[in-house]
Amino acid sequence: MTNSTTGAHLDKQNRAAALIAECQLLAQMTEEPGLTTRRYLTPPVADVHAHLRRRMEALGMTVTVDAAGNLRGLWQPAGAPSRRLVIGSHIDTVPDAGAYDGVLGVVLALQLVEEAAAISLPLAIEVIAFSEEEGVRFSVPFLGSRAVAGRFDPALLALHDSEGITLDLAIRNFGLDPAHIEQAQVSEDAFAFLEIHIEQGPVLEAENLSLGVVTAIVGQTRCELQFSGQSNHAGTTPMSLRQDALAAAAEWITAVETAARQSLTRAESEDDGRSALVATVGKLAVHPNASNVIPGAVQVSLDVRAARDSIRETAVTELLHQAQAIATRRGLKLESKRLMDHPAVPMDEQLTALLALAVEAAGHPARRMPSGAGHDAMVLGTRLPSAMLFLRSPGGISHHPDESVLEPDVEAALQASLLFLRQLTRM
Amino acid sequence: MTNSTTGAHLDKQNRAAALIAECQLLAQMTEEPGLTTRRYLTPPVADVHAHLRRRMEALGMTVTVDAAGNLRGLWQPAGAPSRRLVIGSHIDTVPDAGAYDGVLGVVLALQLVEEAAAISLPLAIEVIAFSEEEGVRFSVPFLGSRAVAGRFDPALLALHDSEGITLDLAIRNFGLDPAHIEQAQVSEDAFAFLEIHIEQGPVLEAENLSLGVVTAIVGQTRCELQFSGQSNHAGTTPMSLRQDALAAAAEWITAVETAARQSLTRAESEDDGRSALVATVGKLAVHPNASNVIPGAVQVSLDVRAARDSIRETAVTELLHQAQAIATRRGLKLESKRLMDHPAVPMDEQLTALLALAVEAAGHPARRMPSGAGHDAMVLGTRLPSAMLFLRSPGGISHHPDESVLEPDVEAALQASLLFLRQLTRM
Repeated sequence: MTNSTTGAHLDKQNRAAALIAECQLLAQMTEEPGLTTRRYLTPPVADVHAHLRRRMEALGMTVTVDAAGNLRGLWQPAGAPSRRLVIGSHIDTVPDAGAYDGVLGVVLALQLVEEAAAISLPLAIEVIAFSEEEGVRFSVPFLGSRAVAGRFDPALLALHDSEGITLDLAIRNFGLDPAHIEQAQVSEDAFAFLEIHIEQGPVLEAENLSLGVVTAIVGQTRCELQFSGQSNHAGTTPMSLRQDALAAAAEWITAVETAARQSLTRAESEDDGRSALVATVGKLAVHPNASNVIPGAVQVSLDVRAARDSIRETAVTELLHQAQAIATRRGLKLESKRLMDHPAVPMDEQLTALLALAVEAAGHPARRMPSGAGHDAMVLGTRLPSAMLFLRSPGGISHHPDESVLEPDVEAALQASLLFLRQLTRM
Repeated sequence: MTNSTTGAHLDKQNRAAALIAECQLLAQMTEEPGLTTRRYLTPPVADVHAHLRRRMEALGMTVTVDAAGNLRGLWQPAGAPSRRLVIGSHIDTVPDAGAYDGVLGVVLALQLVEEAAAISLPLAIEVIAFSEEEGVRFSVPFLGSRAVAGRFDPALLALHDSEGITLDLAIRNFGLDPAHIEQAQVSEDAFAFLEIHIEQGPVLEAENLSLGVVTAIVGQTRCELQFSGQSNHAGTTPMSLRQDALAAAAEWITAVETAARQSLTRAESEDDGRSALVATVGKLAVHPNASNVIPGAVQVSLDVRAARDSIRETAVTELLHQAQAIATRRGLKLESKRLMDHPAVPMDEQLTALLALAVEAAGHPARRMPSGAGHDAMVLGTRLPSAMLFLRSPGGISHHPDESVLEPDVEAALQASLLFLRQLTRM
């Protein structure tokens, strides 16, 4: 604890700049030189662990790695209650990633410990660097937070990566024992979870805001639809005798966009955007896909997300109904199936209100917003009262080397979080 | 000529049934056992030649194969003028074809010679079995009719098939000399061309008609367009901040369909459908094409066909304008290029009127209609006054083993054509 006040004595700009530089340093720990790619339990994860462990130990934290590969540091100030706040985010990345998605939340957490120590805040803090969130290596996301939340199904150990290595073996190869995953569960002493993360979207930038307070991780439905008509000669088949699957799909894609936009308009006027939904057709395949043949079949994806499950459910039902109506009117056949139905995970109301107050006390508007992407807080939120703070993503860019953060936003996040921690000690 | 009256003495149903059976026999001459696939100058083409040569010689015709591989039989009755009517269609097929596309027009032509001989019609007739129309082997269609029309560019001899064989070598391997293609041009004595062909579309069936009189081979424009927006996270990007290339393309595809349908409605009320157009988006590619990513770029094809060039040109200009307007309004970039612009080829007005009269004299409505597909008559029409007769295609099905014709329609085509030939002798 000899250097526990170092960070607090840096001027504010330097403090944020140092955290950004630390993220950039960690981004060089990669499977692919020149890019940042760091999948679950690969060698550069060990390098990140070594770096973070040194940081944690320098802060006087007790460091462990649990059986799911999560690096965990406990800061237990003398005389403080043993009930702990958990702060964390993930250190794995997508292929060719940016430097901030996940990692920034971990180095911010360590900086918070440093700041809390400097002002002798009577609050125990456990920082968790979750080992797996992106789902890249084993095609299943949140392996790290599942273990901490006590929601890790041992059947997952049979998953294979692209090289045929099982999750069980990958854990063993990392020097850990999968039999102990059960013990990775968060301590009974934990009373709340905070995640700080970049927005990965354009909303805060569009509104010229540094910070966002997450109200919920949106629920998500994924469907696959197929419109089946009749392939025919594009020259000899008059417009009136066509059963064009692409024309049908196009009409429906426009309906999807219109419905989501109307929902947004309604939501903006009614409840500050919290009931908004997004709906996306991202994938489309045409058969036979030749310029001189009327499309006989088209497959399309549908991705619908909303912070309120009832709004998402109503929208999906309505959009599938519209697809059927379009198909029927055109004499086509429609098939549809749901591939995924995840309910929304609301953040804890009381903690979120406290976080919003802290953001305002730090001099920023508390923009409440749902998170359209999944995060560790989605999994931890099922176990602990959870809150989540967003930082603006310049250009809305993420999962890309151009991902960035602004120094003033990092400073704002630090200040707001520290105020949040102060409030927690008074609860 | 001993058996020249055989066919005429068959009862009508048997006459049509025999022609259908002959097509089915020829369909067994194939590169792929079990399917009908007969590309230009492959061994089964020689089998078809042998069969047709026997038929022609039995009718007393003079038979040759020109340097483009077209089998040609001349029927020159004693005492008749030397000016000849040319009747023909093609004997090559698409892969896994039906039995009637092209071939039916050749066997009907031979039956017409037989019928004309039986009634001693004073008309010279040259029947041409065009060797190449589909463009399958060398990716360029109408090789046979180009040679006959005197429009064969010798540069085409350098074309390669999928096995690397040049067109030049393919012709030599078939026992012919490509240096003589110039001499394949139709004789100065030829005064008109007639092609009889299945419709390959659903129009006649929809109107419960046996025959159609082709007014023109439609002109055709092919374009390729690309809408470029911004790929983004389908969860974190609100509807209002998207530049979704697929949503833009979908809006435009609907506009294409609407424009073509409106043109059809106008055309039906104004001029019996002759100014109708068809417009098709048959091909579409999405990037990156993932269900959870907003599409950043979409490529689409556009195929527009009309019997009137001005209508096609206006429609293409308007549709490209609409694409630009949609892209601009949505903040996307549009690129477009024209890959093909073929003018319409009108059939000869006088011959077409005569053919329509013959159809009516045979007891059928003379449904005038454009051909939405290309045919040998499109190429011959640039050299000789040409007319074209369509037979109903059940189900509109062609380029498929289920392709069929109805016996009464074959009989109707024979009767109408024979009346047409009688009229020609009186011109």
